[in-house]
Amino acid sequence: MTGKKLRLYPLPAQELLGESIYEDLELPPPGSRNPSRPYVIMNMVSSIDGRTARGGKASRIGSETDRRVMRTLRSKADAVMIGAGTLRAEKLSLGLDDPVGPQPLAVIVTSSGELPLENNLIVSEQQEVLVIAPEDITVHSGGVLRLSADRSGNIDLTEALRILNAEHAVDLLLVEGGPSLNYSLISQNLADELFLTLAPKLLGGTLDESLAILDGPVLATRDINLVSAHLAGGELFLRYSLAETA
Amino acid sequence: MTGKKLRLYPLPAQELLGESIYEDLELPPPGSRNPSRPYVIMNMVSSIDGRTARGGKASRIGSETDRRVMRTLRSKADAVMIGAGTLRAEKLSLGLDDPVGPQPLAVIVTSSGELPLENNLIVSEQQEVLVIAPEDITVHSGGVLRLSADRSGNIDLTEALRILNAEHAVDLLLVEGGPSLNYSLISQNLADELFLTLAPKLLGGTLDESLAILDGPVLATRDINLVSAHLAGGELFLRYSLAETA
Repeated sequence: MTGKKLRLYPLPAQELLGESIYEDLELPPPGSRNPSRPYVIMNMVSSIDGRTARGGKASRIGSETDRRVMRTLRSKADAVMIGAGTLRAEKLSLGLDDPVGPQPLAVIVTSSGELPLENNLIVSEQQEVLVIAPEDITVHSGGVLRLSADRSGNIDLTEALRILNAEHAVDLLLVEGGPSLNYSLISQNLADELFLTLAPKLLGGTLDESLAILDGPVLATRDINLVSAHLAGGELFLRYSLAETA
Repeated sequence: MTGKKLRLYPLPAQELLGESIYEDLELPPPGSRNPSRPYVIMNMVSSIDGRTARGGKASRIGSETDRRVMRTLRSKADAVMIGAGTLRAEKLSLGLDDPVGPQPLAVIVTSSGELPLENNLIVSEQQEVLVIAPEDITVHSGGVLRLSADRSGNIDLTEALRILNAEHAVDLLLVEGGPSLNYSLISQNLADELFLTLAPKLLGGTLDESLAILDGPVLATRDINLVSAHLAGGELFLRYSLAETA
């Protein structure tokens, strides 16, 4: 099966020849525009046992195909957002491989200001970085968007998304974790889709270091719909729409 | 899509007409016999965010189709095994719906002897129950298999499986959790397959109450192979083989 990329669902199943998974997706989907915020998609990779990090790092779970899917989704996004904890966990890029082409805006949400930008964020010359932080936190970065936050430092994400849309022309926002940021967006009905790569691995590990897709209290029951399923090298690439609850 | 049961993989995809998912499976697979133990399959249901219980209970996650899949797998098994924690969490049956037909042996593994058999285990007259417990633990039950255990009360599972095979004619053992028992079997290379129902739900919840498929330290890297994938009502039914690591 190695090398073959199959679309399993919707039927009819077909082999993808030459193209990357999701390459032909139109995002945001036609007719989906919400005037008050960007269309928000999440992309995560999980093991079969629900772990999204290994030794604290997400980068070790997915395959090269998963890495390409991540780049494909980023190439459609106007901005790529992560929580600061994800940046603290490992050195990463929020951009595309082409060092001279256009890049999505890199957005990092922090509640504490503890942000190893210089050490852990790989940024090409073409990429701009925007840090979103509570009003009373000191951040050493060029672009900072300061917003109100609750007592725990949780940013007003509705306002953050409104400003990203209105002032930074972000129509498609790609969120790449971590579990606390994912949870905040989903619990506030601010996420439209989840792209989940299910890696054929059993990882184990204490829950502190292994993480999950979501970290937070029990959610209200939600309608989640499987939009498509692809298979490559034993990895499943699942696209779910997250219907808004009333 | 409601009501339709699709086999997505292996190709060609096809609709299952009238039959239950996995109904035509031959288990143990021909030629797979290990002389020292039963063929061991696990069946679990998980939300998209890797949770296997809601409010501590697994029974609330899967659909009616998932419940039927569970019954189909049980109907092929000589014994159905759970850990005592799973029994403590909720009232359950380890049998089939037919109250007068033959039933798999119900096997419950306990390290502490804390076993609410009378309150939580629903048993038909046709079903026998076997409790596997450490040698020095008092258990109030008819059938008890006493085995050596380590200082934490963890039973010698290799010996338990050998005896189930040799003395109770168990060729196919179905394990239905919880995460500690699953972990013990997988980490000791005692499990052959994992049947995973991926329910289209995002549950959240603290990890104490929400559980995962596995609970234990980081595992050695393992080869896991997707054998088949079915889809019904948005639920994915995934069958993985767990290759033994050297």
